[in-house]
Amino acid sequence: MARGLLITVSGASGTGKGAVCGRLLETTPELTYSISATTRTPRGGEVDGREYFFFDREHFREKIERGEFLEYADVFGNYYGTLRSYVDGQRDAGRDVLLEIDIQGALQVKAACPEGIFIFLLPPSLEELKRRIIGRGTESEESLARRLSAAPSEIDVGRRYDYAVVNDTIDRAVERIKAIIVAEHCRVERSAELFDALKI
Amino acid sequence: MARGLLITVSGASGTGKGAVCGRLLETTPELTYSISATTRTPRGGEVDGREYFFFDREHFREKIERGEFLEYADVFGNYYGTLRSYVDGQRDAGRDVLLEIDIQGALQVKAACPEGIFIFLLPPSLEELKRRIIGRGTESEESLARRLSAAPSEIDVGRRYDYAVVNDTIDRAVERIKAIIVAEHCRVERSAELFDALKI
Repeated sequence: MARGLLITVSGASGTGKGAVCGRLLETTPELTYSISATTRTPRGGEVDGREYFFFDREHFREKIERGEFLEYADVFGNYYGTLRSYVDGQRDAGRDVLLEIDIQGALQVKAACPEGIFIFLLPPSLEELKRRIIGRGTESEESLARRLSAAPSEIDVGRRYDYAVVNDTIDRAVERIKAIIVAEHCRVERSAELFDALKI
Repeated sequence: MARGLLITVSGASGTGKGAVCGRLLETTPELTYSISATTRTPRGGEVDGREYFFFDREHFREKIERGEFLEYADVFGNYYGTLRSYVDGQRDAGRDVLLEIDIQGALQVKAACPEGIFIFLLPPSLEELKRRIIGRGTESEESLARRLSAAPSEIDVGRRYDYAVVNDTIDRAVERIKAIIVAEHCRVERSAELFDALKI
């Protein structure tokens, strides 16, 4: 059985990662969403091992020190991270794993797992990105200005990824990502088993 | 405008290149079939520049000496080849070009144009490949034996390509090749224009 792929989808804030990954998962049952570990308190209805793996801070820090995370971050005092053991377990079982992740996290994953597939979502234009960030209506004027001025340098980081996918419509972005997954499975370096099976 | 891709589809004899490329072209109007040059005599109804570019041998040899072919071969006393100028003209106009080509030709193209996309068709099994070669019914017993014994080493050359696509059914093989084309257009190294357009 061929090993599953690690697929990360990332992008500047406001490019629509969440919506694209949601639609991708809905329409690709064979894709497994990577469950993160966190130190934040479970909210009502959240189940350990379903929404998140819930750890206390000491336990999380031990795992950081043992290099057990593909990436992690401290977000407003809570840790969030991706366990290498979880991702490897899924991949060894032949399942493709999807990581929806911010730009810094994706670069950490790339360093830890260079054979991963790194997809960067692009807005169709800077004007559209501004419209989307403003349209959220959840930002203070100051935070809005910060986000807007950060966008070009955030987008520039995408040049270090493998693929750039324009999120002009969610459906088209999802189709492109599905095509990338099919294509990556056909890469010769992942096809040794096929060739070996054709030997006399 | 982004430059078009050069896509070669190749494979051991009997893997169904012709049928797969035919279906791919039928269902992908934006894909341009590469017209070969040849020294053979036009058959009834064949038009210069449509089925082939028809050259006399002296003219063809001059072009060989000037390095104007991405690949060429002498097949039973007639030359066949792919003009770099034709392929480049199509690609500069933004069109993807499809080359259906034998294994040796594809390796010549890879040397001349390493940024091309090299797809190798695989039979689902050696037994199925044998059935397909025998099923043609056009082979002498000697030529059949030669083809069958050459198959494993022909297939092994596929490890030097970019992608391996199993031709289990024509439709599935065509879908995989279409996905490869979409994915290759999304590669970051081909997306500089997208990033540049997002600069302030």
